[in-house]
Formats: sequence, structure tokens, C-alpha cells
Amino acid sequence: MNEIRIFSPATVANVSCGFDVMGFCLDGVGDEMVIRKVDKKGIRITHIEGFDLPYKTELNVAGVSALAMYNALDLDFGFDIEIFKNIKPGSGIGSSAASAVGSVFGMNELLNRPFNKTQLTEFAIKGEALASKCEHADNLAPAMFGGFTLVKSVSPLHILEIPSPNDLYVVIIHPQIEIKTSEARAILPKAIPLSDAITQWSNFGSLVHALHTSNYQLIKDSLHDAVVEPHRSQLIPHYSKVKKVALQAGALGSGIAGSGPSIFSLCEGFETAKQVSKSISDTYADTGIDFDMHVSKINKQGVKVI
Amino acid sequence: MNEIRIFSPATVANVSCGFDVMGFCLDGVGDEMVIRKVDKKGIRITHIEGFDLPYKTELNVAGVSALAMYNALDLDFGFDIEIFKNIKPGSGIGSSAASAVGSVFGMNELLNRPFNKTQLTEFAIKGEALASKCEHADNLAPAMFGGFTLVKSVSPLHILEIPSPNDLYVVIIHPQIEIKTSEARAILPKAIPLSDAITQWSNFGSLVHALHTSNYQLIKDSLHDAVVEPHRSQLIPHYSKVKKVALQAGALGSGIAGSGPSIFSLCEGFETAKQVSKSISDTYADTGIDFDMHVSKINKQGVKVI
Repeated sequence: MNEIRIFSPATVANVSCGFDVMGFCLDGVGDEMVIRKVDKKGIRITHIEGFDLPYKTELNVAGVSALAMYNALDLDFGFDIEIFKNIKPGSGIGSSAASAVGSVFGMNELLNRPFNKTQLTEFAIKGEALASKCEHADNLAPAMFGGFTLVKSVSPLHILEIPSPNDLYVVIIHPQIEIKTSEARAILPKAIPLSDAITQWSNFGSLVHALHTSNYQLIKDSLHDAVVEPHRSQLIPHYSKVKKVALQAGALGSGIAGSGPSIFSLCEGFETAKQVSKSISDTYADTGIDFDMHVSKINKQGVKVI
Repeated sequence: MNEIRIFSPATVANVSCGFDVMGFCLDGVGDEMVIRKVDKKGIRITHIEGFDLPYKTELNVAGVSALAMYNALDLDFGFDIEIFKNIKPGSGIGSSAASAVGSVFGMNELLNRPFNKTQLTEFAIKGEALASKCEHADNLAPAMFGGFTLVKSVSPLHILEIPSPNDLYVVIIHPQIEIKTSEARAILPKAIPLSDAITQWSNFGSLVHALHTSNYQLIKDSLHDAVVEPHRSQLIPHYSKVKKVALQAGALGSGIAGSGPSIFSLCEGFETAKQVSKSISDTYADTGIDFDMHVSKINKQGVKVI
């Protein structure tokens, strides 16, 4: 096998009380990539569709992660990469992570899997760092492993796969505005009240337990963010209105996807998710701001060959 | 049945990264109580052994929780309570919680269980509040339910039972010193760095996952306290030495039991626990401070009839 086509999914990082450590994986929203084994040594980006991204390997997220992996091997051949980008950069649902994960996953498949998924994520971190200026894995881990993940530490990389109930769906609204990562970071407090921190880890421990026990009511009771949402939600127009109508329509909880501007709403069952999507969509249509909607099952597989 | 004898166990609250929300239950260390249904209305403490505690119902922790339950019913009889106190007040392993839980559990058994365990814990909170000047359930919940518990909220009371591996043991050292609760509280910072808070909830989420999956190595990796231990450990003589020898002897992790002065060490297997106990004991013998040691399996049942 010299050529492979893969699907690299969108992801949601943070998940309310799981700020900076938790993420989950989407189905049906993601990039496609073709990885081709070629005689010429090195890594080349040969085709990009969907968004205007750099072709130069060292400036392309998928290229940088691919290079990190390539340089760890001693191969007498190379790879060409074609990118069919569907996840808009800056949307907050792991666009750069999908690129970073896709290239190394595809190469690994063509090479008969010399690396495990944690090792592949280590390479992908190098690509993610190009986009986000820091080494983190909140979106990489769910894109690579699927389902819900907890990044216990980045160095050494320690990823936990948290089980989740089968009938869990997510609704994403992506308002077409830009939030600068630097602004989303600067708005966070350096210190937080101990009481808020306790609330956050109580909710986070409860969320992990709720996912393990497929307890939807407890997922709902745990999806609160006492620490980050009060600050970052100010950067997203009509955030509280979206959250309100989502909960009224039956969502278990809503929160900021990554550093925004996308907002996720977790739901029990597809019918509820559709209703939540419609309610959010109807409400946001009045704001005059363009937006996209996605409804997706939680994707338990992660990146895959198609 | 007009008389019942119960065992009300010692407990460890906080559990490193689970500050203020998590606790677990001990076996073999606890109080005994006799609850007797009598014609005379009201609640009376008729016998106390072990430690010098008030006989007046309204001033006795077991009496206050019993009264809270008694007043919620309309009974034409009353209860006498005998207390055989084994858990030293102020030791940090839930002495007052054992008293508060024991009386209401025993009465509930004699009345053929009109209340569930969460409701009983609500009554016990009133007794605990007499001892600790605030309404909390970190020790009550594990004493009542057994195993590991997560108190998600006190008002309304929401207790989660977290499963735990079968071969988990705890070693307790109780240095015979007094730590004033007011001092243990005053030493805590009002605000903490966001980065420490993130570390704490990452570890706490990991601990919940580790308990669910019986992953001893991950329990070990998660038993860290980035927030409270650096402050409160200063109040416990030779704290870091105890922790060091416990880890060297094979403990998964050590931390402050409640607000101290007791120190707990969780261990995989009885043999390791015995070795850890011996190492701590040998080390502490040199300090000139009197101490008690306990080795106990995690008690999955909680308070029980004997």
C-alpha cells in the first residue's frame, strides 16, 4: 500500500469544568488527507483545498508534525501530503489539531504502525505548537484516540481515555468572528479564588464519574465552568443567549469550544440535538452575525482510514 | 428489635487532589455505639467510654444528629445512646463524623429504615456542624456509604459513590499533637494560581478514572496535592519525612488526612501496607513525638450493624 486517505476529525477542548485537560471528538466534521509514499525523500505538501494554508512543509502544521515523525525514522523514501481542509482555522474546534494528527496517523499506517497513538501524538504536538505557539494536546488527544480524553500531563505525555455513553451528541455553533488566541489567553486571571477551584474540581471529578457510569443527569449537573467561562464568554457575542436556548431545548450543558468562538452543547440523543441545533440557529439568525451549525455524535474512534 | 449495636468507621477526607470533596472509609478503626428504643420520648446519651465527651444531648455530636432525625419524625417513644469511642477527637480521621453517622444510622435501623443514606447524612451534617462549626460532609459521606465518596454539593446534598479496587489498603499515622481547626483553615490561601488549580483538577479527574479502572499506577500518579499540602503540611512535624519513607516503602501516595495531624498512605496490598507502616513507625519513633499507627483495608460498606 503506497497511498492512503484518512479522515481527521474536529474536536472540542476544555469541556467546561475540564479546562486545559479534557477534550472530545466529533464525527462527520473533519478534514480529509491523502498521504502518498514516494521515492523522493522528505515531506511535501502537494495539494491544499478548502482554505488558504502554506505549502512550505516547515510552515504547515501537517508538514511540521510529519517532519517530526519522519526525522525520527531513517527512511530512503518520502511522503507527499494532500490536504482537503474542512475545519475552518480559528473556529475553536481543533482545526490545527486535525492537520497535525492526520499526517502522522496516515504515514504510520503506510509504514505498518511503527508508533503507538501516544507516540504519534508526541509528533503531532510539534505541528500544533506551530499554530498555537505552545505545546499542548487538548485537541490532539481526542482527534487521535477518539471519545473523551484527559491529558494528565504533556511532558511526559500521559493521555487517559475516558469512556462515554453511547447516545451522546454535540451541537456546535460557529459564529463567523475571529478571537485572537492572545486575547483569549490575556483575559484569563493568573490567580483564582480557592472556592472556585474547589467547585471546578468537584464538577470535573463528577464529570469523569458521570461519563464512566453513563449518567446523563450527572453529566448535566457537572457541565459547569466556574473559572474560565465568566471571562472568555465576554469575547463571544450572544454567548449567554445561546446557552440559555440550548438548555431550554434540552441540552445537558453548553460551553466554549476551546478558546472559542464556537460554542458546544452536549445532548442525550439525536432528536434532542436536532432540536437544540434548531433553537440555537433560530436565535442566532436574529443577530446579524453569520454562523455555521454542526450536529455530531461523539466519535469514539478518532482519526481513521477511509 | 429494640436495641442495636453498630460500628461507625473512621474516614479520611480530602485525599490529596480531592480537597474538600473526596473521602474514603476505613475498616477496623471506628467507634461502637448501642442505640436503644425506650418508652421515654427524646434522645439521651446514657454512657460514654473512651474519651471525655459531653453527655448533654445538645452538646454531643451524636446527640445533635440524632435530635435532627428525631425531630423530623413524630414518635411516641425515644432513644438512649451508648458511645464506645475509639477514634480520638482531633485526630483528623473523622471522629465527629463517626459519632454523627452512628446515631442516625442505628436509629434508622431500629425504625425499619424510613430514611435513605443521603437523608441520614443530612441529619448527620447537623451533628458534624457542632464539632467543626460548618456544614460539610467530607467525612460523613464515606462513613455512611463506605468506599470512596465525592461530595458534589452540600446544599442540596449530592453524594457520588466512586468504585475502588479490591486490594487497596491505607496506613494512618496519628502523631499525638493538636492542630487547631482554625489554624488549619487560616493557613490556606484565599486565591491560588490558575496553573496549580489546573494541575489539581487534572489529578483529581485522573484519580476518579484510576479508581474506576482499578489502575494502581494511575492512583499513584494522581495522588498529588498542588494546593493545600504545601501550606498545611507545615503544621505537621516531620511530614515530609513520613511521606518520603512511605513512598520508598512502596506506598502509592501519602497525604494529610482531613486537616491533620494524621497522615494517610494508600497502598496496593496488605503486605506493602504492613511494610509502609513499619517504615513510618521506625522513622517516627526517632522524633520523640508519641503516635498511633493503623493499617486498614478500604471499607466498602461503611457504618454497619454488628
